[in-house]
Amino acid sequence: MTNETLLRCRQELHTHLTTELLPFWTARTADHINGGFITHFDEYGNDSGEDEKSLIAQTRSIYTYASAHRAVYGNGALAELARHGVEYLLAKMWDTEHGGFYWMTNRKGEVLNDQKIVYGQSFAIYCLSEYTLATGDPRGVDYAQKVFDLLQKYGADTCYGGYFEVFDRQWTLSGPGAAGGNRKTLDAHMHLMEAFTALYECTRQPIHRRKLLEVINLLVGKIMHPIYGTGVPQFWADWRVAPQIKFDVIWGWDRFTEDGVKREAEDNTSYGHNAEFAWLLIHALSILEIPHETYFNQLQKALSHAADYGIDWEFGGVFVEGSHGGKVYDREKEFWQQAEVLIGFLDAYRLFGDEKYWRAYENVHRFVLDKMVNHEAGEWWPLMTRQGVPIWTHMSHSWKINYHTVRSVVQSIRRLDKLLTTR
Amino acid sequence: MTNETLLRCRQELHTHLTTELLPFWTARTADHINGGFITHFDEYGNDSGEDEKSLIAQTRSIYTYASAHRAVYGNGALAELARHGVEYLLAKMWDTEHGGFYWMTNRKGEVLNDQKIVYGQSFAIYCLSEYTLATGDPRGVDYAQKVFDLLQKYGADTCYGGYFEVFDRQWTLSGPGAAGGNRKTLDAHMHLMEAFTALYECTRQPIHRRKLLEVINLLVGKIMHPIYGTGVPQFWADWRVAPQIKFDVIWGWDRFTEDGVKREAEDNTSYGHNAEFAWLLIHALSILEIPHETYFNQLQKALSHAADYGIDWEFGGVFVEGSHGGKVYDREKEFWQQAEVLIGFLDAYRLFGDEKYWRAYENVHRFVLDKMVNHEAGEWWPLMTRQGVPIWTHMSHSWKINYHTVRSVVQSIRRLDKLLTTR
Repeated sequence: MTNETLLRCRQELHTHLTTELLPFWTARTADHINGGFITHFDEYGNDSGEDEKSLIAQTRSIYTYASAHRAVYGNGALAELARHGVEYLLAKMWDTEHGGFYWMTNRKGEVLNDQKIVYGQSFAIYCLSEYTLATGDPRGVDYAQKVFDLLQKYGADTCYGGYFEVFDRQWTLSGPGAAGGNRKTLDAHMHLMEAFTALYECTRQPIHRRKLLEVINLLVGKIMHPIYGTGVPQFWADWRVAPQIKFDVIWGWDRFTEDGVKREAEDNTSYGHNAEFAWLLIHALSILEIPHETYFNQLQKALSHAADYGIDWEFGGVFVEGSHGGKVYDREKEFWQQAEVLIGFLDAYRLFGDEKYWRAYENVHRFVLDKMVNHEAGEWWPLMTRQGVPIWTHMSHSWKINYHTVRSVVQSIRRLDKLLTTR
Repeated sequence: MTNETLLRCRQELHTHLTTELLPFWTARTADHINGGFITHFDEYGNDSGEDEKSLIAQTRSIYTYASAHRAVYGNGALAELARHGVEYLLAKMWDTEHGGFYWMTNRKGEVLNDQKIVYGQSFAIYCLSEYTLATGDPRGVDYAQKVFDLLQKYGADTCYGGYFEVFDRQWTLSGPGAAGGNRKTLDAHMHLMEAFTALYECTRQPIHRRKLLEVINLLVGKIMHPIYGTGVPQFWADWRVAPQIKFDVIWGWDRFTEDGVKREAEDNTSYGHNAEFAWLLIHALSILEIPHETYFNQLQKALSHAADYGIDWEFGGVFVEGSHGGKVYDREKEFWQQAEVLIGFLDAYRLFGDEKYWRAYENVHRFVLDKMVNHEAGEWWPLMTRQGVPIWTHMSHSWKINYHTVRSVVQSIRRLDKLLTTR
């Protein structure tokens, strides 16, 4: 691929980010009455009115604005927006009695769900660390460390390793099955890696480094498939593979059959998760100053599985999920998988030098800019048919916000710039 | 066995406890100049002068006096002695900057070794919980909980489960090998079970219950031998069995060859540890209100191994250690193994009703009272030849104190009383 191609891709992303994506949010998300962010918008960018503020959407928003400010966008306005979010998070979502952040409030800040969900706590650590890195405000990392300590005390399973994931307000572990108390997931552990990376980057404390290394070893040693190197979504507490079920408290907008089970509940992996895992691991190793070659085999397997089996060469974009062996199960196009493979394929191209990763990148890049972006509004469609017709049409709700989209564009620009300067 | 035999044994123990053992300590251990306890005495009970106060000896002493007071000995004097020990522990051994208790001070209270050793922290939790249970003074359980929280944050291995064991003052994990940072031991995990049992008995907090259950599952599932149900002394971090080596910081007075390796480094188990493990587990289950039948198989294996292979029917007493299959490697007689099997065999006799456990108990009971007790002084010899001639002659030092001996006698009397009243 030529420098012209690189530059054209870079410019397309930059234009999308600065004229569509960031303006979509800065124009409408701040809740000037109740604090925090409004995170429910329809396909036209109109407030769709749901009376919810979810921990996920609030923390991911803070991450988005803090990290984009750190990447020198926004002339300070994004740092201010992040601060506005942190004030709400600390004032309304922090449990002053038992510690940790509540799962859900209404717009006014009254608690709707007081459970402590590790997935949400991990985003609190992530965004609060990033906020301090971006602004220097010590409140972020203070609270990030409080949450880290709570996860060590209440989250960690000192018998089998890893973290339990669903707790009540008092941090008592939830029951089994759909209540989620007897399962462990790729999703939560991958986001703990992401969170501990930002925390360690911020504090440089040995304990944060050690626990980051422990969760990396756990992911590579037990959570990724021993042969295929692809992500296994769910486990029992003792790390036997568990059939993938839907939890009572959902933290994604995932598709299940009506009885809450995946069609291929024990042989299912997400191309988007695998690429996201790989680039997050590469980033973690970079912060840890450990050569990525240490996990070369793991990285190569996860990224090549996504490139070899996940790409739709006919209609463009990356599929939702398929088997560890490669067979595609779900050919629709969801926003976050597109976002994550962009970064993953650019990392793979840079590290492995294989043109197949560039071709895969370019394929998804085109699909995103030509189909996935709702240019009328500025944000991405959440879910499309294989051919690229919107199925769901909201621009944002409690589980779809700007974290995947903005991060993908910011990180892809950074990687394209690096490719341009090192050629 | 007859009621007369039970009663005679009970009376022998009671006389030993109240006229020899407790008076030995109450007469000489309080350090009225510097606070805390003097814990170095020769065979005549004279202060042997070592300028040390070890975390192990201070905490075990507090446990001894608190628990004996709780068992209604001492008319209040033992509670006062425990309080005297707690004041020193909190004032001189607590690290106000990084948390946790130092490993060693001199008699004045100046820190000689500032490492944080999990084995010692576990005894801090144990004695401070017992102290609050015995006296109602909340300072005990306050600090026990602080240590518990530190162990969850710094001790726990969130990759493979269990706890790492050796840290520097700042709680950074020590290096591998003799430094101890890459091994996990039966010893530390068994004493964490003991400590968390007392903590949970004191607080009844769900998190203390959960972590107690986790360490029990770890002990039964990974630390005890999968076939023989006997204790495996040392492991690598990932729970593969490791050859038994001597650590730089020792927490027992164990015997190794000159190069610090056990003769049978990978097939070695301690009859005393196995019986101690079994009765501590029975006690934990009782506090948890879980039927002991849940772990019947484990309990039966550990106790019968000690009774079937560990007893010296020729000279009396229990041997030091041998193979998991039964073969005895070390036929000398150490004080703490005698102490622990007494309690274990009485529990086994009560639960399983097999006369072999009574015969084993009676054998060791006779050996202890006829040979192991230094009646001139009041305490037990630390180590004797197989025939019962003292090899080491100190009554106490930094690693031999009154915890095993007094606890054994107090707990055996309690069990004999129970046998007498339920017949």
